[in-house]
Amino acid sequence: MRIDILTLFPNMFTGVINESILKKAMELGKVQYHITNFRDFSTDKHQAVDDYPYGGGAGMVLKPEPIFHAVEHIESVTNSSPRVILLCPQGERYTQKKAEQLAREEHLLFICGHYEGYDERIRENLVTDEISIGDFVLTGGELAAMVVVDSIVRLLPGVLGNEDSPVLDSFSTGLLEHPHYTRPAEFRGMRVPDVLLSGNHKLIDEWRRKQSLKRTLERRPDLLESYPLTEQEIEWLNELKRNG
Amino acid sequence: MRIDILTLFPNMFTGVINESILKKAMELGKVQYHITNFRDFSTDKHQAVDDYPYGGGAGMVLKPEPIFHAVEHIESVTNSSPRVILLCPQGERYTQKKAEQLAREEHLLFICGHYEGYDERIRENLVTDEISIGDFVLTGGELAAMVVVDSIVRLLPGVLGNEDSPVLDSFSTGLLEHPHYTRPAEFRGMRVPDVLLSGNHKLIDEWRRKQSLKRTLERRPDLLESYPLTEQEIEWLNELKRNG
Repeated sequence: MRIDILTLFPNMFTGVINESILKKAMELGKVQYHITNFRDFSTDKHQAVDDYPYGGGAGMVLKPEPIFHAVEHIESVTNSSPRVILLCPQGERYTQKKAEQLAREEHLLFICGHYEGYDERIRENLVTDEISIGDFVLTGGELAAMVVVDSIVRLLPGVLGNEDSPVLDSFSTGLLEHPHYTRPAEFRGMRVPDVLLSGNHKLIDEWRRKQSLKRTLERRPDLLESYPLTEQEIEWLNELKRNG
Repeated sequence: MRIDILTLFPNMFTGVINESILKKAMELGKVQYHITNFRDFSTDKHQAVDDYPYGGGAGMVLKPEPIFHAVEHIESVTNSSPRVILLCPQGERYTQKKAEQLAREEHLLFICGHYEGYDERIRENLVTDEISIGDFVLTGGELAAMVVVDSIVRLLPGVLGNEDSPVLDSFSTGLLEHPHYTRPAEFRGMRVPDVLLSGNHKLIDEWRRKQSLKRTLERRPDLLESYPLTEQEIEWLNELKRNG
């Protein structure tokens, strides 16, 4: 997979792509990152990338030319038509399902604005996907792009050590994860639940599935609506509800 | 505001806190960042921070001791009781309202796990807030912490150049933003809407408010449920619905 990122702050990405899974994926040859400062594609003698909004108002608006030119340059040198993804609060809410879908692409291009809005013609005529990572305001699209890239790259086959790991994550099963415990068995008087020390794998599995249901019921009951409950799970759920 | 971050990957933060608003806020003396590698607080001779899960299963679990010790060390040297925030998929969904709430604190401490789960005793006895930035799986809490930090720091008084800017953002008003346009008025045959070039501020304001409603209706109708519509807006909304 090739990942292009258009930004005015290329240095923001250095620390992130040189650590952890993003670095490992690159070293394994599963992904290449190309960071482009779209100011280099300004046609203006002052290298301006933004301008005042038509109709007045506060803030600046990113001009169409530098971003169109940068995207077209990348399309031309790669001979490819990437998905062109705009990070913005107005976009489709990002989910694990979208991550899985994007992980099947060969070329993704992310456009990150900063402070400003985007000229609407960028959205209408260049962008294939508008993505929002949540209902909160960020200074720019850079951190949102890093979040999306991380969630995709870890799904590429062979990137995570244990091939099974992504399947067990929260949201991949549809329920929140059960609690985890490790040594010591007692820390400052806080003990690990006896069942986990019992060695009885049937009881441990049952405890975990119940805890996973309990946590989902308490914190994210909305997830239960789309989760295909087994008869056993329906019974446990009714029991949990009876016990408050 | 003091912001502490506990992580096993301190270098991930360097590029991000040395650019843009996060850097500016630090230079203005509005915020201090302290990044701590909690591996330094391991009591183990191999500096281990994780261990196998009790009860078996894939993946590793972060041990309680290094994280308890790191948090207590920070509390002791700062003589402060920070909000202790755990980034995890099981947490409360992060919103702009939560950002505004956290921006009023003096000391925040973020715990970022990586790959692994957290020992449950960390959640139960150390953490004051569990936050999830969305229903997708990340390799670690680092990027989620950066997102949350960015959304908070930009709200600190005096950090954004124009004091009014945060108020005008999406989610701060409750509706999605209207489209923006800047020069050129025509780019490859794509023209800026005439009304924005008209100089008639009453018409421009009306067009923007309608477009904001339209975009919200099309993309995020859920936001309209909690937005206090004016009579005029109800009329426009009915008109928009009639016209499909």
